[in-house]
Amino acid sequence: MSKIKVGVAGYGVIGQRLADGVARQGDMELVGIADLAPTLSIRALKEKGMPYDLYLVDGADKSQFDAVGIPVSGTFEELIDKVDIMLDSSPGGVGAKNKELYVKHNKKAIFQGGEKNSVADVFFHGYANYEKGVGQNYLKLTSCNTTGLIRSVDCLDRAYGIEKVAITIIRRVADPGDYHRGLTNALQMDKAPSHQAVDLMTIMPHIEATGILVHTPVTHGHIITVVAKGKQKITKQMALDAFLTHDRIRVVTIDEGFKGNASFFRYARDLGNPRGDMYEIGLWADSIVESGDDIMYAINIPQESVTIPETMDGIRAACCMETDRLKAVAETNKYLGLGKWK
Amino acid sequence: MSKIKVGVAGYGVIGQRLADGVARQGDMELVGIADLAPTLSIRALKEKGMPYDLYLVDGADKSQFDAVGIPVSGTFEELIDKVDIMLDSSPGGVGAKNKELYVKHNKKAIFQGGEKNSVADVFFHGYANYEKGVGQNYLKLTSCNTTGLIRSVDCLDRAYGIEKVAITIIRRVADPGDYHRGLTNALQMDKAPSHQAVDLMTIMPHIEATGILVHTPVTHGHIITVVAKGKQKITKQMALDAFLTHDRIRVVTIDEGFKGNASFFRYARDLGNPRGDMYEIGLWADSIVESGDDIMYAINIPQESVTIPETMDGIRAACCMETDRLKAVAETNKYLGLGKWK
Amino acid sequence: MSKIKVGVAGYGVIGQRLADGVARQGDMELVGIADLAPTLSIRALKEKGMPYDLYLVDGADKSQFDAVGIPVSGTFEELIDKVDIMLDSSPGGVGAKNKELYVKHNKKAIFQGGEKNSVADVFFHGYANYEKGVGQNYLKLTSCNTTGLIRSVDCLDRAYGIEKVAITIIRRVADPGDYHRGLTNALQMDKAPSHQAVDLMTIMPHIEATGILVHTPVTHGHIITVVAKGKQKITKQMALDAFLTHDRIRVVTIDEGFKGNASFFRYARDLGNPRGDMYEIGLWADSIVESGDDIMYAINIPQESVTIPETMDGIRAACCMETDRLKAVAETNKYLGLGKWK
Amino acid sequence: MSKIKVGVAGYGVIGQRLADGVARQGDMELVGIADLAPTLSIRALKEKGMPYDLYLVDGADKSQFDAVGIPVSGTFEELIDKVDIMLDSSPGGVGAKNKELYVKHNKKAIFQGGEKNSVADVFFHGYANYEKGVGQNYLKLTSCNTTGLIRSVDCLDRAYGIEKVAITIIRRVADPGDYHRGLTNALQMDKAPSHQAVDLMTIMPHIEATGILVHTPVTHGHIITVVAKGKQKITKQMALDAFLTHDRIRVVTIDEGFKGNASFFRYARDLGNPRGDMYEIGLWADSIVESGDDIMYAINIPQESVTIPETMDGIRAACCMETDRLKAVAETNKYLGLGKWK
Repeated sequence: MSKIKVGVAGYGVIGQRLADGVARQGDMELVGIADLAPTLSIRALKEKGMPYDLYLVDGADKSQFDAVGIPVSGTFEELIDKVDIMLDSSPGGVGAKNKELYVKHNKKAIFQGGEKNSVADVFFHGYANYEKGVGQNYLKLTSCNTTGLIRSVDCLDRAYGIEKVAITIIRRVADPGDYHRGLTNALQMDKAPSHQAVDLMTIMPHIEATGILVHTPVTHGHIITVVAKGKQKITKQMALDAFLTHDRIRVVTIDEGFKGNASFFRYARDLGNPRGDMYEIGLWADSIVESGDDIMYAINIPQESVTIPETMDGIRAACCMETDRLKAVAETNKYLGLGKWK
Repeated sequence: MSKIKVGVAGYGVIGQRLADGVARQGDMELVGIADLAPTLSIRALKEKGMPYDLYLVDGADKSQFDAVGIPVSGTFEELIDKVDIMLDSSPGGVGAKNKELYVKHNKKAIFQGGEKNSVADVFFHGYANYEKGVGQNYLKLTSCNTTGLIRSVDCLDRAYGIEKVAITIIRRVADPGDYHRGLTNALQMDKAPSHQAVDLMTIMPHIEATGILVHTPVTHGHIITVVAKGKQKITKQMALDAFLTHDRIRVVTIDEGFKGNASFFRYARDLGNPRGDMYEIGLWADSIVESGDDIMYAINIPQESVTIPETMDGIRAACCMETDRLKAVAETNKYLGLGKWK
Repeated sequence: MSKIKVGVAGYGVIGQRLADGVARQGDMELVGIADLAPTLSIRALKEKGMPYDLYLVDGADKSQFDAVGIPVSGTFEELIDKVDIMLDSSPGGVGAKNKELYVKHNKKAIFQGGEKNSVADVFFHGYANYEKGVGQNYLKLTSCNTTGLIRSVDCLDRAYGIEKVAITIIRRVADPGDYHRGLTNALQMDKAPSHQAVDLMTIMPHIEATGILVHTPVTHGHIITVVAKGKQKITKQMALDAFLTHDRIRVVTIDEGFKGNASFFRYARDLGNPRGDMYEIGLWADSIVESGDDIMYAINIPQESVTIPETMDGIRAACCMETDRLKAVAETNKYLGLGKWK
Repeated sequence: MSKIKVGVAGYGVIGQRLADGVARQGDMELVGIADLAPTLSIRALKEKGMPYDLYLVDGADKSQFDAVGIPVSGTFEELIDKVDIMLDSSPGGVGAKNKELYVKHNKKAIFQGGEKNSVADVFFHGYANYEKGVGQNYLKLTSCNTTGLIRSVDCLDRAYGIEKVAITIIRRVADPGDYHRGLTNALQMDKAPSHQAVDLMTIMPHIEATGILVHTPVTHGHIITVVAKGKQKITKQMALDAFLTHDRIRVVTIDEGFKGNASFFRYARDLGNPRGDMYEIGLWADSIVESGDDIMYAINIPQESVTIPETMDGIRAACCMETDRLKAVAETNKYLGLGKWK
């Protein structure tokens, strides 16, 4: 079987990682990436010898690329023409505009969380609703927090049944290297309920969810606390047992040295992971407590890379590479090395 | 009736505010404060013209004070001798040692949250268990987070009955001007359950409580989210109605401009509050959401000053100035100007 | 002699402090302040009982103020009509527009550092070029960093003569409570030379100045290092002697407890200064070092309040309240309590 | 010629990078690393499949390693016995104790900046005083700031002659993932002159140096501004020309996207550099300004990795692998890929 041909629109924080993720899938081929300007990321691509071909989106000034010796392989539409499916990680709102081109060229696409749900046929999560994405033309991925949160809730839900969750999202406010946003010595409130709780209900309509989000001035990993009500009482041990089986959840303890979100970043760098990234969420075993019949726990969301596996799942679903949910996620996990630590 | 004579041991972040708080009570007299070294706070006291008399604790080197012209009024024991009750805000552990002197001089004392519970006869909160403190010799105040948390839970509990709470504490890691502790670009986990949940159960044994605490690198105000299960269903409106009646809870909205913990600090400075302090906790009306039958909300804890009112309540209880809970807190509130904003 | 009547346009971080500063001058009268919306600062004004009358600038929606019970005393032009001079601390660019009204009403005005130099007749600093402002209609104050920097350079220049300075500005990036700007875990470069060096040369054209500015994610006080070349060699002791005579420079040491910019903020709060403000710059005696024939030192700039004294000087100059430089600054210092610590 | 055998003591932030650096040198062999406890870094080593053999220092509890399945290859002394030279990156002070073992086993060693100068025969910098290290038994590397600073000063000194420098160090206060130190919303002063200026004079005794150091609450890269006085006037172009020839100085501009210290970290991650590290310092072309006859500029110091190349140089010197300074640094640069970007 020939490989599925994939293109990436928008080579920013997420786009770079989508491209890297596709390049690691043995049954996919990264045709190229598209962007607008010679950003630091594009300059790094050049310094690395152009492992990915670069195409220019409409509005790009090719002379800017020529001036610094960055080779250009063609236009955005030429890229679209060559692929089976586009991964769109353009800035929020641009994806909806790009969709017109995907439709024109009769190509499938997967959008990231910054776009409106209406851009897609299905709001998608690899573990929670894989089947809904099979054969669809346009998928939208859940955002980073929602993707990680759903991994943990879906894990408990499939094991024991979940009725209700109340979440507190302690959100990192910028990525390392961001200069276009930030917060200094302040926590910032969003109006409740947080969109992540609402999004969870869209993906998992049998669960009632609400939550509060607080922005914090850090760059490494969101932390979410979850208070979940099971259909039966879920003990600490039951929760732990379920989480330990999951290939995209790394169960850790403070005593091992995982003191907070920055520990995961440090550990990923020490592991030699490209870009110091981690695909799995972290889950602190020593955060799990019983609250009456409810269960409470805390997870760490590596915001830059957490949606990559579920996007790979999305390609498998949309392109009908695999119709079985568990086989599909297992394939993605294999190529990304997920679950190896167990 | 003559005024109750009060001394303060430890003129740090809390001690200064205890002294200021006592000085504002019309029925109390601040006899003096005691400390060990010519810190910035003691130097500021001198620059202000010594509004409070300074006594030196054992181990202090008087020549250091003489060298910079700071007048000393006597020894720690001389201060103890002159007062009816001591407020002890020494560094954690020192209070237990000081207690020997209080016992020796047959004087009452109130300890802050850093000491072990065993230092005192009663673990005290002005609103939640005032009666237990009446006539007692040694009280220990709840810590800043617990004090503010209990205000809100006690408020709902007295109005509707509360069975269970699950809290997430987003903790500020240092005070403005702290150089002896800090955290840089990292969130840090504590093992669950947090001591604040345990402390709440000590004060309010009829409630089951648990929680997770996360440290964040900011200096202005902790934020706590609370998921509370009522004896009956508590709607958003019911919760709001209860909170609005409380003289130590300021109900605000994001739209008014209270965007986060730093907004309260800014507002207190703009109000002209001494030191930019706020005695009341903040409660975001637009954070209140229903989670099934549970109610969820977020509060802001001004860590430097929040325990001052409850400590004043403690003086009233220990010294039998007032035996009625509501009359006692009303007296404190009157002198501190609490609830005026309503 | 009747008091000079002053109005303030823009009741933000600077405007509030200008109003407070004017209110402390025995020979001036604060007529009122003008603003656009019921911000937190205006709400605090109301909670304090409206110590200053509020006027609404063009575009303000009075119904928003009525809705929350904030009394309005009239329009912006009505305020202008009642005063001798306006202090304009509107957002950058708005002052230039407001100037049309000041000209129309034939009133003097002083603009803050955010406006272009062309808005004013004189770019003004109370200590460095007071005489140039005497009797002028439109002054523009130097920005916070430049104001504090010039204090120290002018101090050395008048004592020993300065030929050249090279500065490094370690800039705080936001004020406490700011949510509209910030930086997270990053230092940010500006292109050299920094505008503060250029501005210094405009005020002190006999000195050559250049410098580099780096933004840092903190809210309490800029720190500037200065390498200054004197007309003669200036020793550490000579520099210290000069700084110690200045009423707007507080000379401190690390050993006293002034460990950094946050120590000044803490100290100002402990002093009981309104808003925790400090009008004087800090200068670390233990930062002064000789670099060959040059002298190097570090100062702390309390960005929210440092320009207030020089703006008061500006009123004295523009309104011809005093023609002598030293008498004028002494008058301002007396009313603001500056130099008392010596 | 057989490869030089190297061991690393202390597998922390620096030790890991030293090991990685040695592993990249074609003419060296990494025999193993030694540490005390199963830290996160050692756990990561295990998860990677033990690419480096682990030896245990005295005091280590082997059962802790056994409990988590980390294989141990022997004792510290067994490691020392197998190598030609040890790189000691133990916590400050431990290196001096380790030296007794190196002496006992008659092995050479290179210490990092945390040790006292007296631990070594030579205080070493690959570019500035390579010749002094040739054939010596014990070298001590300059610290991260000093290493990067000297690169730039030595570069100008060899091109044009430098007489004097005055530096301002804007120091990052922790590394990503550090939880044992940090600073929150505060800048912190050190007493002047900074040790880096003093250290520069030890390495380059013909230059007079002084400076001021300010700690800032960030984790990615120190920034240093330098005011340098040449033996002749050095123009902006002359400085730039010199810096552009250097293989360990990356000349960048703000317009390219290098907005601050975090940009270098982001760029290194995007380049795919292991751990997101960068061996070269950054130098902003648009920070270079002339201050009279002096030249001023700003550099970025990647604190975790900047000393690795000079330590590799140190091995070449101590082990007499190369006696010529330029040939030695060129060999190191070749294996580390330094200067390729030019």
